[in-house]
Amino acid sequence: MTIEDVQNRPDARNMPINKVGIKDIRHPFVFVDKNGHEQATVGTFNMSVNLPHHQKGTHMSRFVALLNEDCQQISLQNFSVLLEAMTHKLEADVGYISAEFLYFINKSAPMTGVKSLLDYQIKLAGQWSKEETRINITVVIPVTSLCPCSKKIADYGAHNQRSHITVSVATNGDLFAEDIITLVEQQASSELFSLLKRLDEKHVTELAYDNPKFVEDVVRDVANALNKESKVLSYVLEAENFESIHNHSAYAVIENNKST
Amino acid sequence: MTIEDVQNRPDARNMPINKVGIKDIRHPFVFVDKNGHEQATVGTFNMSVNLPHHQKGTHMSRFVALLNEDCQQISLQNFSVLLEAMTHKLEADVGYISAEFLYFINKSAPMTGVKSLLDYQIKLAGQWSKEETRINITVVIPVTSLCPCSKKIADYGAHNQRSHITVSVATNGDLFAEDIITLVEQQASSELFSLLKRLDEKHVTELAYDNPKFVEDVVRDVANALNKESKVLSYVLEAENFESIHNHSAYAVIENNKST
Amino acid sequence: MTIEDVQNRPDARNMPINKVGIKDIRHPFVFVDKNGHEQATVGTFNMSVNLPHHQKGTHMSRFVALLNEDCQQISLQNFSVLLEAMTHKLEADVGYISAEFLYFINKSAPMTGVKSLLDYQIKLAGQWSKEETRINITVVIPVTSLCPCSKKIADYGAHNQRSHITVSVATNGDLFAEDIITLVEQQASSELFSLLKRLDEKHVTELAYDNPKFVEDVVRDVANALNKESKVLSYVLEAENFESIHNHSAYAVIENNKST
Amino acid sequence: MTIEDVQNRPDARNMPINKVGIKDIRHPFVFVDKNGHEQATVGTFNMSVNLPHHQKGTHMSRFVALLNEDCQQISLQNFSVLLEAMTHKLEADVGYISAEFLYFINKSAPMTGVKSLLDYQIKLAGQWSKEETRINITVVIPVTSLCPCSKKIADYGAHNQRSHITVSVATNGDLFAEDIITLVEQQASSELFSLLKRLDEKHVTELAYDNPKFVEDVVRDVANALNKESKVLSYVLEAENFESIHNHSAYAVIENNKST
Repeated sequence: MTIEDVQNRPDARNMPINKVGIKDIRHPFVFVDKNGHEQATVGTFNMSVNLPHHQKGTHMSRFVALLNEDCQQISLQNFSVLLEAMTHKLEADVGYISAEFLYFINKSAPMTGVKSLLDYQIKLAGQWSKEETRINITVVIPVTSLCPCSKKIADYGAHNQRSHITVSVATNGDLFAEDIITLVEQQASSELFSLLKRLDEKHVTELAYDNPKFVEDVVRDVANALNKESKVLSYVLEAENFESIHNHSAYAVIENNKST
Repeated sequence: MTIEDVQNRPDARNMPINKVGIKDIRHPFVFVDKNGHEQATVGTFNMSVNLPHHQKGTHMSRFVALLNEDCQQISLQNFSVLLEAMTHKLEADVGYISAEFLYFINKSAPMTGVKSLLDYQIKLAGQWSKEETRINITVVIPVTSLCPCSKKIADYGAHNQRSHITVSVATNGDLFAEDIITLVEQQASSELFSLLKRLDEKHVTELAYDNPKFVEDVVRDVANALNKESKVLSYVLEAENFESIHNHSAYAVIENNKST
Repeated sequence: MTIEDVQNRPDARNMPINKVGIKDIRHPFVFVDKNGHEQATVGTFNMSVNLPHHQKGTHMSRFVALLNEDCQQISLQNFSVLLEAMTHKLEADVGYISAEFLYFINKSAPMTGVKSLLDYQIKLAGQWSKEETRINITVVIPVTSLCPCSKKIADYGAHNQRSHITVSVATNGDLFAEDIITLVEQQASSELFSLLKRLDEKHVTELAYDNPKFVEDVVRDVANALNKESKVLSYVLEAENFESIHNHSAYAVIENNKST
Repeated sequence: MTIEDVQNRPDARNMPINKVGIKDIRHPFVFVDKNGHEQATVGTFNMSVNLPHHQKGTHMSRFVALLNEDCQQISLQNFSVLLEAMTHKLEADVGYISAEFLYFINKSAPMTGVKSLLDYQIKLAGQWSKEETRINITVVIPVTSLCPCSKKIADYGAHNQRSHITVSVATNGDLFAEDIITLVEQQASSELFSLLKRLDEKHVTELAYDNPKFVEDVVRDVANALNKESKVLSYVLEAENFESIHNHSAYAVIENNKST
């Protein structure tokens, strides 16, 4: 029995499609980090390719087959191999993959040294064609921000809150999530920890009070650090403070494409 | 032409259904508050009824018809009328409606008096049968919480953050969202405002520092106030602090059914 | 008493900021549509401006003041006025506002003509500078898609599902949400309705079966219609099918900037 | 240096707290399933205990310490051990833990047998006291539903869509997620797969058309199967159809406590 392949029919509308594929498919894999350490996690994947004007449809099931066969282990290094393999398997010119997942770092509390895992959202996004490969890594780093205005005008105390600093970086392949996280946490009023003993809590409370920063200060100081880092080709950097005195956020964005 | 009504067929499985209906339908309406003031908003509605064992299906389109015909204006008072009308229209014994929406209060900043709207999530949920009508109102009140431990152990400063206090109250019909909001905001380290001038920001910063409260303190103090309020028949009260020094929340729950 | 204005201090880091402002503030307003009809709704707003390198901080409270004073009524026409007013009030060169909200159309069922409201997500996003004003309108249109492959290869039936078609259009100011919705719904396997009688359900079931479309067909046919519409300067068009036979989506994207 | 332990102070408000602890903390772990197979995943945990009236605060950091020390591996069997250990560590009478995570099953396509992973959301929730241990397991099973009314009244085709069947079961400890998934998938119009070849797509299209079910039919048929399963002590069962012809869901609920 032959079943007609409707997707393979010719198409007469003369309309190429930028991206076609699958979206929001969950998949477990092992993420290999900077030092080759392996960490099991669960990702949400988007996979797509371009479609030339003369082809009616893409081969949707091949994306899923690739995910199930070749995506047991992902690192910044093998991500471009995966992109190229997918683009060939789909008989396309340009291929796109993005994978979002949680990544954990086993941090030491600042005074007692007690260990605990902190979670960071990571998104790897790549684009492959014969001409070039582009890899972008986005990390959401949760930190503490303490308001300089509140500290200055109040006789005591200062409002502070959790903030998200989101850094999306185009890299030549040698910059790792851990590097970005370290770079960012040094510029916050304080970094976060899952587990703090009382001595640690005293430390981070005073540290934040000693380092008041507006949302404007945070993006400027992180941008300054990203500008000095030669492995960063371009970046989009956002800071969002979930204000403890308002029901909305303060936020700021700096973009920089070093090649232009 | 007659079209068979499949839902009206008899059913032989001998299995009554607790609730059947529609979920997550958006609908614009005017909410009438305590003082008869009208406020236009957009709600997300769930509507359902019980289904006796002998009936194959309910009349899904009647829920939507009722929403479009009879839900232009909703108040705590007419909510039970709506519940009864729906239950009769669906030829059922028990009917359920819930509506979630944003409600705004035009607040005055504490020192300058400058006005701005603050948003609160409200959920009205009711159940009607010939024997009894139950109406529950749930309000999420965003506030500031400041940590007593951090204040005590640090030489200066204290971590603080936005918190959600969620109060779900069964009432005899005379308790309004505004009453619950006022009662709760008085027990927080500080209430929130959308617009604060520098004098106001100084005030709320110092106020929060003067009123440090653990998540345990907040639920205890709000519970104490709810216990004294005779219009409250029973309640579930939750507090969640989006900790500024961690990437997780602290939370606490107190439940009380005064009739038992 | 004078309170120091910390934000107004000079800044020595030599780092201009692309955007700084407020994010995710909820605000009720009246949306004025194509025919001047008014519809009350609740929006989520982002408001920001650029910040020159020499200024430490922006004036966060002015955004909130503007929202509370000047945003009672919003139309495609007055959105650029609002953008300009905000940019001046913040003493900036470039200003950005986005507002997301639900918009309802009172649709007639295809056979019985019975009326019901259907909700569409709209996002207005604008950018103002002395040189130019750009307004973008994004609409999410929920529709039915029916799979041509499934129809062709099965002896009976065909899998179908709800899909989202998201159209983001840069316009010269004369293109309305209603126009985009009408244009898109004509290209789907079938449009959606909140209320359908049995005769209507028969109609949309057969209509979808008579109009099978891959996610690729939908984006091509909508792109073709957008290309013919002279009020559209450029667009990004996405279709996402929440596949009824998978636990992930099929999706496709076509972008076109007519001026290039 | 001694740092005062503010949480350990006495409390005079005479107000016990039902639950106090931590919420929405992410943690990676290995889930051990029915056959002892291990699957690495990432969970979102809530952990809490009761607090007697005389104690000011609980020991928040002990929850995080326990998670980091004792939660590398979780099974239905060791979950009660974890609950008891936590309750003792917090010096409390009643302890509560919930963990939500994605679980994957490697399914075979119905005709070609090609393998692919499908994801299911699982929530383990337990409560421990000296008197009793209660363990609840909730599984969200995505399936296809096809409308019997649409099939009956249309000359051809039938609307169908993705649905979520959510089963929350109290069990004596011998019922596994896989058992619930198998039981539920047999009652749907069709089960879902991530990867289907054309022969498989033909099969599931025709299978769904041959098994039309209202949301009412699905809950009745699943309830019937749960009633026959002696390892199920009580259950709450919900079905939600993300209707392909509407922009809202149809849903139904059956609850049964066999012991009453």
